[in-house]
Amino acid sequence: MKDLTEQILQDVITTRPQESFKGTFGKVLLVGGNHQFGGAIIMAATAAVNAGAGLVTVACDLVNRTALHARLPEAMVIDFSNQAALLEMLNGVDTIVVGPGLGEEEQSLAVLKTVFANTKPTQTVVIDGSAITLMATHQLAAPAGHLVFTPHQMEWQRLSGIPIKDQAEALNQAAQEKLGGTVVLKRHHTEIYTANGTFRLPIGSAAQAVGGMGDTLAGMVGGFCAQFKEAGNQAVLAAVYAHSAIADQIAKDQYIVLPTQIATALPSFMKKVEQGPATHHIGFLGGELRC
Amino acid sequence: MKDLTEQILQDVITTRPQESFKGTFGKVLLVGGNHQFGGAIIMAATAAVNAGAGLVTVACDLVNRTALHARLPEAMVIDFSNQAALLEMLNGVDTIVVGPGLGEEEQSLAVLKTVFANTKPTQTVVIDGSAITLMATHQLAAPAGHLVFTPHQMEWQRLSGIPIKDQAEALNQAAQEKLGGTVVLKRHHTEIYTANGTFRLPIGSAAQAVGGMGDTLAGMVGGFCAQFKEAGNQAVLAAVYAHSAIADQIAKDQYIVLPTQIATALPSFMKKVEQGPATHHIGFLGGELRC
Amino acid sequence: MKDLTEQILQDVITTRPQESFKGTFGKVLLVGGNHQFGGAIIMAATAAVNAGAGLVTVACDLVNRTALHARLPEAMVIDFSNQAALLEMLNGVDTIVVGPGLGEEEQSLAVLKTVFANTKPTQTVVIDGSAITLMATHQLAAPAGHLVFTPHQMEWQRLSGIPIKDQAEALNQAAQEKLGGTVVLKRHHTEIYTANGTFRLPIGSAAQAVGGMGDTLAGMVGGFCAQFKEAGNQAVLAAVYAHSAIADQIAKDQYIVLPTQIATALPSFMKKVEQGPATHHIGFLGGELRC
Amino acid sequence: MKDLTEQILQDVITTRPQESFKGTFGKVLLVGGNHQFGGAIIMAATAAVNAGAGLVTVACDLVNRTALHARLPEAMVIDFSNQAALLEMLNGVDTIVVGPGLGEEEQSLAVLKTVFANTKPTQTVVIDGSAITLMATHQLAAPAGHLVFTPHQMEWQRLSGIPIKDQAEALNQAAQEKLGGTVVLKRHHTEIYTANGTFRLPIGSAAQAVGGMGDTLAGMVGGFCAQFKEAGNQAVLAAVYAHSAIADQIAKDQYIVLPTQIATALPSFMKKVEQGPATHHIGFLGGELRC
Repeated sequence: MKDLTEQILQDVITTRPQESFKGTFGKVLLVGGNHQFGGAIIMAATAAVNAGAGLVTVACDLVNRTALHARLPEAMVIDFSNQAALLEMLNGVDTIVVGPGLGEEEQSLAVLKTVFANTKPTQTVVIDGSAITLMATHQLAAPAGHLVFTPHQMEWQRLSGIPIKDQAEALNQAAQEKLGGTVVLKRHHTEIYTANGTFRLPIGSAAQAVGGMGDTLAGMVGGFCAQFKEAGNQAVLAAVYAHSAIADQIAKDQYIVLPTQIATALPSFMKKVEQGPATHHIGFLGGELRC
Repeated sequence: MKDLTEQILQDVITTRPQESFKGTFGKVLLVGGNHQFGGAIIMAATAAVNAGAGLVTVACDLVNRTALHARLPEAMVIDFSNQAALLEMLNGVDTIVVGPGLGEEEQSLAVLKTVFANTKPTQTVVIDGSAITLMATHQLAAPAGHLVFTPHQMEWQRLSGIPIKDQAEALNQAAQEKLGGTVVLKRHHTEIYTANGTFRLPIGSAAQAVGGMGDTLAGMVGGFCAQFKEAGNQAVLAAVYAHSAIADQIAKDQYIVLPTQIATALPSFMKKVEQGPATHHIGFLGGELRC
Repeated sequence: MKDLTEQILQDVITTRPQESFKGTFGKVLLVGGNHQFGGAIIMAATAAVNAGAGLVTVACDLVNRTALHARLPEAMVIDFSNQAALLEMLNGVDTIVVGPGLGEEEQSLAVLKTVFANTKPTQTVVIDGSAITLMATHQLAAPAGHLVFTPHQMEWQRLSGIPIKDQAEALNQAAQEKLGGTVVLKRHHTEIYTANGTFRLPIGSAAQAVGGMGDTLAGMVGGFCAQFKEAGNQAVLAAVYAHSAIADQIAKDQYIVLPTQIATALPSFMKKVEQGPATHHIGFLGGELRC
Repeated sequence: MKDLTEQILQDVITTRPQESFKGTFGKVLLVGGNHQFGGAIIMAATAAVNAGAGLVTVACDLVNRTALHARLPEAMVIDFSNQAALLEMLNGVDTIVVGPGLGEEEQSLAVLKTVFANTKPTQTVVIDGSAITLMATHQLAAPAGHLVFTPHQMEWQRLSGIPIKDQAEALNQAAQEKLGGTVVLKRHHTEIYTANGTFRLPIGSAAQAVGGMGDTLAGMVGGFCAQFKEAGNQAVLAAVYAHSAIADQIAKDQYIVLPTQIATALPSFMKKVEQGPATHHIGFLGGELRC
């Protein structure tokens, strides 16, 4: 298992091409946010927008529309139970993030099945939270696409069958190989299992143990995959690293880190990376105060 | 009666264990927020999240869902009149805060009775605002659990039967002993009556006399009790002290202190405490500007 | 006509008594905000809270409840067409602000009539915006209470019958005497007609010509009257002066001033006043960044 | 084709007349924001308000009312499918912006037809986004008024019939002459085709390739046209220049620029312009932090 370093940020977050438009940076669809867990999809979408995805649409229970727009007018919204609208969106995007706040109800399962049945091999599909649990408990076949799973340890146990206490590298790697795709196993030091090797995140802290932290990560992974398509799996690694690198900077001054603060800090943080490693140690929080 | 000092903060707010996850820092359910007083439960939940509780759910009138998520996507939400959902949540959490904006209507009473009938001896139950009034006027028996009451003087009169003008230490202590639990009596210098003695808060000011200040305190008490379970009653004392210590710092520059500002300042303030007493006098507000 | 000076701020904004609670600083009811103009009552209520009123309730069309709470959880809310709730609130408050965003429909008129029929001689009643127009066009008798009218010139023409081009001191003063109460005539240099003389506001600028500026002033007048009851009419003068003094400071750095920025700046500004005239020239905006 | 320079800002953004009121700075109606794209009209309206328009009303699907007010209480709102209300507003304003988030459904088309049938020759009409697409696909005749079109390249292809690869100056200029009005062709270096010549925007960057950037520009164009009526077409050029000048400043510290940040920065940026070119290089972001 190799430790990730800041180098992954330099490799992935490069200067944007001048001749570009919104489509250049990818279209992301985030699916989740039922009647109870609307905040999760809002946080994930905020991360995707702030990470630099070109166009972001949320498919959720419409009770969440107003809160979404009140926080994030940059995102568009459709009803996740509107089959026609969902199919049209699934067909038109580059990256799909499914799971944040989706819930585990009948409706959640129906939405997930629609998503899984309609992805394309060229799309990236990030599978998070309740989508992982539903996939495991209902034994759903994995959808088409470049898959990224972002389970915490209990979700990984459900999906892989490996009990938490036995989740060591060899077993996890074998489970990833069987499953296909990339697995971001969220734990004290997060591990990423890929077709090209296994990586360990050496940074991060207990200040991140706050509800919504995983939703924010899922949105960032989606945003990075959409925007940095050519980086492939590297984009996933960079998103995971950036998430905790930002948290570590915030945690210098805060007992806990709020997930929305990580999203807010993304544009400044990514600029520092673009400008090169020498400037990394300069605080990046001054320039991005916004609501 | 002993004056509380900054030492209570040092005793309670210790470094988070590295090997931890959201559950380590407790699950909090806040119950309140009817059709008229939705802001109260929003402020209480914001305080609980920012204080560091691991997972926070709000049970309220669903007319408040959108405003809650627009301000605080970190929280989850259920309908407080959905009996099944409420029972499931009550069964799964460590700490319950009941009362902020609950109101005194029939529905409020029904919700309160459900809460009181379904708490467990191992849970902490913070009883605030209209929950205290309803408990007194309807002579409800105290629920199971580690109880914390947070009355202002008129609510204490209702609950204890002691008229405001007679609310001196001996009578209050006797009433607390009869009632059980811990009593945070909010007044000019707040007094805390516990099984292990009586404490007086020597700080705070009239700048805190703003609607919502008590809701914020109730949420902080809940957040501290969930996160610092092993500190027991000390967690209550620390929350009360931190609330006014933050307010005093803000009041150096403001004629009044807004309750939401106290919640916003919590992560920075708690970090200063964790770093030790020497850094206390450094302003903590610079680093935590967020919405 | 006497020019107001900063002295009016020193006279009114004094140190809060230590032995106090929320009720000490007054209860304010704001009535307005129909289906089209909800922002107006939100801005007025925000100004009342930030000015230091102890407890603030909004009576409005409930379509505005969520936006109100999303911005200002400190306020409570009732349906302005719920007659029983409105009467109960009217009976229990110290100060009423009626008009911001009330509209001029049948419902608006019905609400206004209920308010006018149920105020008490001891209450302060601030009459603003559409309430002035409705009062003029429907020839409503003035309600009981200490009245404060806050018309702009066209509203004053409707109420007093004096065409804008003839609105000079003598005629205005005569109209105020006939009308009773205090008249804040909003114009290039606002004039305040009172039973104790006429005052002119020598400050302010065209940067304030932004929608919502008057709603914010009405809320500030309400907040000051509730909190500084013993100052009587002086509280109105201080609110008018503070409103433009804050705007002038913001306008040093901005082409226009947003009304909500004035409300946000109130707690810091009022602290500077409390601390004395020597500190006035220190920027006050640094310390009060909040949402 | 002439390159625009900072001079256009100095020419248009002049000191406000002291003897003025809200009406002096124009009334703007923004029409758009259907059930799916509410964020677009919110961003456009925010830009119009912050640019200094005197009074701003939004006509949209009312599902967007609460999110609009939660972010922007300065704006008023009507139902875009309420024909009577829409006609009354169309009759009373100086400037109309139609298109942001309007959608391309039957309802969108009906609303657009109502707008197009009821503008006046003295009004400025900014036609953006889906309004351009609908106009092209349904071959609607251009409305009365001073027209400003703000297409991106695909929309321009639809409207002008010129394929993207052929969109060079001569063809574009000919199409603009046939169409009438002013065409802001959004591309890598935006081009503005007017009756008085063609201009090229030499600034801006790929950091602006974020959803909502065009909605913000449309709102700014509307706000500038309303406020700086006498500047005529110069107001459009100034809005386009200011939009990217602000973005360039933000992009010094951020990998991407969020559209709402541009709106937020407007009041400070415009003040710097008013104060003269010497101060341009001073950062303008410090003074305008607000929600």
